[in-house]
Amino acid sequence: MAQSNLRREQIYGVAGALFSKRGYHATSVRDIAKQLNIQGGSLYAHIASKEDVLWEIIQRAASEFLGGVAPIASYGLPASERLRLMIRAHVEIVTHHLDDATVFFHEWRFLSTERERIVASQRDRYEACFRKVIEDGIRAGEFREVDAKLAALMTLSSVNMVYQWYKPDGPLSAEQVADGYTDLIINGLSAADTGGNP
Amino acid sequence: MAQSNLRREQIYGVAGALFSKRGYHATSVRDIAKQLNIQGGSLYAHIASKEDVLWEIIQRAASEFLGGVAPIASYGLPASERLRLMIRAHVEIVTHHLDDATVFFHEWRFLSTERERIVASQRDRYEACFRKVIEDGIRAGEFREVDAKLAALMTLSSVNMVYQWYKPDGPLSAEQVADGYTDLIINGLSAADTGGNP
Repeated sequence: MAQSNLRREQIYGVAGALFSKRGYHATSVRDIAKQLNIQGGSLYAHIASKEDVLWEIIQRAASEFLGGVAPIASYGLPASERLRLMIRAHVEIVTHHLDDATVFFHEWRFLSTERERIVASQRDRYEACFRKVIEDGIRAGEFREVDAKLAALMTLSSVNMVYQWYKPDGPLSAEQVADGYTDLIINGLSAADTGGNP
Repeated sequence: MAQSNLRREQIYGVAGALFSKRGYHATSVRDIAKQLNIQGGSLYAHIASKEDVLWEIIQRAASEFLGGVAPIASYGLPASERLRLMIRAHVEIVTHHLDDATVFFHEWRFLSTERERIVASQRDRYEACFRKVIEDGIRAGEFREVDAKLAALMTLSSVNMVYQWYKPDGPLSAEQVADGYTDLIINGLSAADTGGNP
């Protein structure tokens, strides 16, 4: 990696951690520079503004979700299987990039109006992928006739909020969280006998 | 209401709206005063600090949840019925106090360490009420043998996040949101045949 790319990666890493912990507004460019042992002014050789750093972190997270999870919605698999894979992939991203996910979910409203609008449309597109799978499942008779929009919102709320309580050294692995949520969500949607009664 | 109480209520109302929209850090005492058409300095006749205003807003929300929802966990009703009532009461609070709920869920990490610790323990107590009901339901055979902690987290994540997307003038009423979520959550937990299959 070229030297300047390496530095930029360090800046995004440090900024992600600070934005996540203190929030975007309470973090100054000087705070970021200090963690990297450089002068605030030298930081501007690598980045144009603090908001550009926020934007980059948020766009990286958006790419992970839209690139790694959304395409699963179109796989040639039963809806419940697609939903299971999507929940797992989403939880993987959140738990493996906790700082960036926190910034993505928490700080996006501090972007400029133009950029905020782009993120809003990315989130809409993402939500639509979950809704599509649930609608597919209803059409196929796999799922009950639920309100697909509400079910998609509930699913996304559950998996998004993982960033707020998940501890990498806690008792649950990312897989266990994903499996537990998948079980509850799919069972909640399921049209079939849940079979849980002994 | 005494004149000074009235003024304090106005301050909390305006501050709640500003903290909710822009975030705590991006809102100054002067911003709050400006909305009330008074001098920044005169605000300090009514409040000790900006953090005190944040604390008051958060404590009011905490009282709503702990006073209005948590006690339902001990009602003499089947677990699924208690959970239904708790979800409904929680969604009612969030949708009727959107600004304060947003501040409660979003800005509490900006409290001083001491106060943050109090809120964390209030949230733990609240989560424990949901967990208790789910555990009761498992013991009674109403619910499957799920991970009660994860199920409580999922339930709370879903109902908490309502503040992020709910629009009072949107297509869904608070009751419809609560009913839709209750249906999905209880069905997800349910040990019985869901009966949704025609």
